[in-house]
Amino acid sequence: MVSTAKNVSLSQGPDPRTSIQKERAEQKFNPQELQYFLEGSKERAELIKALTQQMERDPVLWTDGSYYDLSKEQIREFTALKINRISRYLETDSIDVFNRRLSLVGVFDPAVSTRIGVNLGLFISCVRGNGTYEQLKYWALDKETAQIKGIYGCFGMTELAHGSNVAGIETTATFDRENDEFIINTPHIGATKWWIGGAAHSATHCATYARLIVDGEDYGVKTFVVPLRDSNHDIMPGITVGDIGAKMGRDGIDNGWIQYSSVRIPRFFMLQRFCKVDRNGEVILPPLEQLSYSALLGGRVMMVSDSYRMLARVSTIALRYAIGRRQFRGDDVDPDDEEALETQLLNYPLHQKRLFPYLAAAYVVSAGALKIEKNIEEVLAELDDAVDDNDDAGIMKAIDAMKSLFIDSGSLKSTCTWLAAEGIDQCRQACGGHGYSAYNGFGKAYNDWVVQCTWEGDNNVLGINIGKPLVKHVIAIEDDGKIVKGSSDFLNQLKEYTGKGADKVVLNDASDIEDVKKVIKAIEVAIIRACYESGKVVREKGFDFVGAELVIISKLKAHHYLLSEFVRRVDEFDQADKKPFLYTLATLYGATIVLDKYNGVFLAFGVLSTKGASDLASKVIPKVCAEVRPNVVGLTDAFQQSDMMINAPIGRFDGDIYENYFDLVKILNPPAKTKAPYSAALEAMLNRPSLSERERFEKSLETGEILSK
Amino acid sequence: MVSTAKNVSLSQGPDPRTSIQKERAEQKFNPQELQYFLEGSKERAELIKALTQQMERDPVLWTDGSYYDLSKEQIREFTALKINRISRYLETDSIDVFNRRLSLVGVFDPAVSTRIGVNLGLFISCVRGNGTYEQLKYWALDKETAQIKGIYGCFGMTELAHGSNVAGIETTATFDRENDEFIINTPHIGATKWWIGGAAHSATHCATYARLIVDGEDYGVKTFVVPLRDSNHDIMPGITVGDIGAKMGRDGIDNGWIQYSSVRIPRFFMLQRFCKVDRNGEVILPPLEQLSYSALLGGRVMMVSDSYRMLARVSTIALRYAIGRRQFRGDDVDPDDEEALETQLLNYPLHQKRLFPYLAAAYVVSAGALKIEKNIEEVLAELDDAVDDNDDAGIMKAIDAMKSLFIDSGSLKSTCTWLAAEGIDQCRQACGGHGYSAYNGFGKAYNDWVVQCTWEGDNNVLGINIGKPLVKHVIAIEDDGKIVKGSSDFLNQLKEYTGKGADKVVLNDASDIEDVKKVIKAIEVAIIRACYESGKVVREKGFDFVGAELVIISKLKAHHYLLSEFVRRVDEFDQADKKPFLYTLATLYGATIVLDKYNGVFLAFGVLSTKGASDLASKVIPKVCAEVRPNVVGLTDAFQQSDMMINAPIGRFDGDIYENYFDLVKILNPPAKTKAPYSAALEAMLNRPSLSERERFEKSLETGEILSK
Repeated sequence: MVSTAKNVSLSQGPDPRTSIQKERAEQKFNPQELQYFLEGSKERAELIKALTQQMERDPVLWTDGSYYDLSKEQIREFTALKINRISRYLETDSIDVFNRRLSLVGVFDPAVSTRIGVNLGLFISCVRGNGTYEQLKYWALDKETAQIKGIYGCFGMTELAHGSNVAGIETTATFDRENDEFIINTPHIGATKWWIGGAAHSATHCATYARLIVDGEDYGVKTFVVPLRDSNHDIMPGITVGDIGAKMGRDGIDNGWIQYSSVRIPRFFMLQRFCKVDRNGEVILPPLEQLSYSALLGGRVMMVSDSYRMLARVSTIALRYAIGRRQFRGDDVDPDDEEALETQLLNYPLHQKRLFPYLAAAYVVSAGALKIEKNIEEVLAELDDAVDDNDDAGIMKAIDAMKSLFIDSGSLKSTCTWLAAEGIDQCRQACGGHGYSAYNGFGKAYNDWVVQCTWEGDNNVLGINIGKPLVKHVIAIEDDGKIVKGSSDFLNQLKEYTGKGADKVVLNDASDIEDVKKVIKAIEVAIIRACYESGKVVREKGFDFVGAELVIISKLKAHHYLLSEFVRRVDEFDQADKKPFLYTLATLYGATIVLDKYNGVFLAFGVLSTKGASDLASKVIPKVCAEVRPNVVGLTDAFQQSDMMINAPIGRFDGDIYENYFDLVKILNPPAKTKAPYSAALEAMLNRPSLSERERFEKSLETGEILSK
Repeated sequence: MVSTAKNVSLSQGPDPRTSIQKERAEQKFNPQELQYFLEGSKERAELIKALTQQMERDPVLWTDGSYYDLSKEQIREFTALKINRISRYLETDSIDVFNRRLSLVGVFDPAVSTRIGVNLGLFISCVRGNGTYEQLKYWALDKETAQIKGIYGCFGMTELAHGSNVAGIETTATFDRENDEFIINTPHIGATKWWIGGAAHSATHCATYARLIVDGEDYGVKTFVVPLRDSNHDIMPGITVGDIGAKMGRDGIDNGWIQYSSVRIPRFFMLQRFCKVDRNGEVILPPLEQLSYSALLGGRVMMVSDSYRMLARVSTIALRYAIGRRQFRGDDVDPDDEEALETQLLNYPLHQKRLFPYLAAAYVVSAGALKIEKNIEEVLAELDDAVDDNDDAGIMKAIDAMKSLFIDSGSLKSTCTWLAAEGIDQCRQACGGHGYSAYNGFGKAYNDWVVQCTWEGDNNVLGINIGKPLVKHVIAIEDDGKIVKGSSDFLNQLKEYTGKGADKVVLNDASDIEDVKKVIKAIEVAIIRACYESGKVVREKGFDFVGAELVIISKLKAHHYLLSEFVRRVDEFDQADKKPFLYTLATLYGATIVLDKYNGVFLAFGVLSTKGASDLASKVIPKVCAEVRPNVVGLTDAFQQSDMMINAPIGRFDGDIYENYFDLVKILNPPAKTKAPYSAALEAMLNRPSLSERERFEKSLETGEILSK
């Protein structure tokens, strides 16, 4: 890009730059220090900064506005080149540093992080979760896969006709005792592996989910490493792969389809940490079928932290724009002052109500992301230790922990990815027409993002799967006096809050709602009552009839997790001067993302009174928004996302929204080209002869006289 | 495209085709006859069919899956070629036929209809609304603009720094008395005309909104025809235009920016139907400033009918997919039956609850679209007649009617475009991963669609502008005993439903909710109470503090309009056998799109009881969904959208979801190409030498020994 002169003229134009500078000068805290809270520690915050700087200056990784003009073919090639570049950092990064790096890449080029993720995340996680230590060592380390070298793995779970119901997939792995091999086969079109990231162009091997068939018996879905391409990158015989083509977003990823036509692999290509087939075809089954889906856990957890960074990015863009943009003269302008500027968008209570919840959500989700990340590390390490020690009791304990992790990560993944999708959409709308320009990033952000609501566990299916055990818990508490442990232990208060006479309202008025701990309590009671009511229907008709309720229960469970963890973190935060700002965000989150959004649920279950609902809308939300308003610039600066990561001219740090945007538009679309490449067609249309002339005057009166004779 | 063989093998794969055929065979009504209801009459339905057929067979207009693979440059050129083609139909189409045609083009290629719309819709509407009859005749007819010939007009309203606040735009039109000219000027970057459809490549003239300045006095924003390109299509001196570049969607449209540098136009280029400047610079102002924005009305009305067609299209895709797709074994499958197929997605109550509301919405919105279309025709004709007759009283009456039209069209435009956006998103999610494929149409549909929520009146700004007069009405009823007329006359029941003791609940239980007329009543009462409560805040603090409430009031107003008109149309529909199906859709719409969505509002204002809310979720919605379920295939077939208009392999009429989709993917991405064009880069990465080797062994122990000596 070349630089352009500022669009100076003697006439006075808008001056958004001064607006943001003024607000920044009045900021009451150091945003950089607040970042320590968001990233978990000063050290991590500084690591993030160093990694960002490294990638911003990298000639291949650097991303700018021209990125929004790339065609599918270009973006796919650039993605491969970026992966090549990142593989060099990977050779010396520690795993923790590399995960941080990938999380940052996910902000400015999500196709890159996902395309790496199918290899290093899904493929290796699958080998790690389902393979023995030696298998992991061989496929991931000895072959240098973990450095994106030698082998490029992909993850072959979903099929054309089977996504969410993994247990129903139809690819077969039939044991051939004579040759000590498995025969991998796609029986029909419906079993074609579909959506497989990396399959179209990159992958050399596929961690394939297939039904284990031994002596005609079906042992269910297990995992097998199947080579797709040889070391010359040529497709192996019996393998058919294809590109699934254009997608709504993430076109940088070469998602493909795979058909296996009686492909033979040695028996030892089966991943056999838990499930084993010996030389004679004896099958040992795993202690928990779900163990083979543990590969998805890492991705789900990553999506929570992706949600934090995405919410941070889009709210930064929309809020910086709302500081610079002025529109109409609102109630804050003296109507007699003819010289007064129009009102900043950000000063309108409606605009605050539209955007501040997503700012608060970025903060709240950041805390949940850190917690669940730590949780998964611990659980996987526990399981590894138990397996290493052949400690059966330890394995069962780790499996219990993994079940809890499935609930927590599933409810968080679905709730946070939906929330971020909504946040991108709302932030875009809040930027009006400029939000619809590709260059301001929202369109690509949305298109790339929304697949997160579908992949690695469809959000609705996850919601159902998380809501179900909670309702089952409540039924068991009622029927058998069960005592629930772990993050859902609040369900044990069932008797206190349900049944005759136990209709206590938790939130009566504004002061209750402003007390975050009461809001957390209210979420618990709402979950209890929702589970209790759903339980009645389940007893009578079955779970299918409470699908919508289960999804809501799962969402409330996630909000409970997030808000509780955020408040806990704030309580223990060592920078006392910043705590009040953080508490305000917690209150705002509770009031908007939880109570306002689900006010029907809280009202219908009598957790919130009608006075409370009225206070919520007319008092609490406007009041808390007004408290957040002066700190918006600091709260967004605290995300410390660089201009490259923001990649939106209206969202840059300097706040010079119009100059930045206009410059970029002119650089990418030079106005010296005043005619389109296809201008001749347009001109021919406009200058075409009359219809009669083009019809050779065949329909004229004169012709009529001739032809009527 | 070439045809491909079916993916037959001896193994039994999924058979979605049979599922849909079976459902179709059991259909209880003729879908084609139901289309007469949707399109308003048999004649119109048949016209639609003829036009569809004409365009499906047209070699240029025909659109298929390859459309989703086009780059921005390609799609822009194709859009121009399609416009050229359509201009030939236009030469013989009547206006009504042409409007129908454009509405259909909007379904399968919305960039084409919009790019024509800025010329024939906005430019000509602006000339019609603001120009004298002679000016309209000159610019639209004599110059053949109306046939997309000679002149190509664009609509220069918005500026880089001014969108919604049209009265604040800053381009100037200064009267030069000496030369009897206006000087059009862009004073600074903020006043650059922005987002102007057609400006970048197509337009020869721009209907420019600029501040009229005479003798230093600012008379506010008026309209002027300013030539941009000469008959050679070369840019005129003083004109700078540029392409605003890539957008989230609608890349087929050449949206541009325009800067005027002291461009002189003759005085008679000012549109002077209401506002005039005579030879001496005497200014006559229009009776209503808003008259100059009447050009936007037609577009808003069109968007209601676009919403109907979009909802019809996406719900057809998602519902046909849900008939063919099977997933898990639900409660409807005998668990002991090992041979049983998995459950059709459509049989899950949650899936029904997710999709059926948009099916119902397509029907309900169709009725509102027809009504508002008729309404605008009448009002504009009334105004034209009054102006022709110099009938001042008639003009004032028409202006009153136009004010009502601003309210109705504004609340409908915002509510319906939001609803359709939500519908596209929900339908996509309901198709899981296949919904994210570009070829199934949702991505492009969404990206093209959502700008409708922003342009020609930002939805939130419109919502505020519609909510405001309603609250003002309520305040006037309370204070001055005002009597409201027109579509908001239900506000006159204010005293009956607000204040002490007037807290009557309208919907107490399931049977109330199943009575659509009671639901309509409930919406009225909710609006009354919401206006009343907002009124209290407004008296104290001003309108800015009830922004969110005003938007909700506006949405409820639109739902009231739509549902009332739908019920009225069903009541008078002459095919009695189909009425029950339509009533069920009305009930479903009321229960889901209105009550479930706004349950917090209905509960908080005591319009719905908590028992009612509980019945709504646990009884009414499941019951009505179950009633709709058997008729889904007929209700979607009734939209009569051809496979070309659907343009999604999983949504085609034959229901053969997997074969259709797989075929298209293979045609567009031939699997014979097993390597990417950039494969060399990938291979070099995977086969790269070790890090030590690439570092020339400089960090080795051996080197260490040398360098440490």
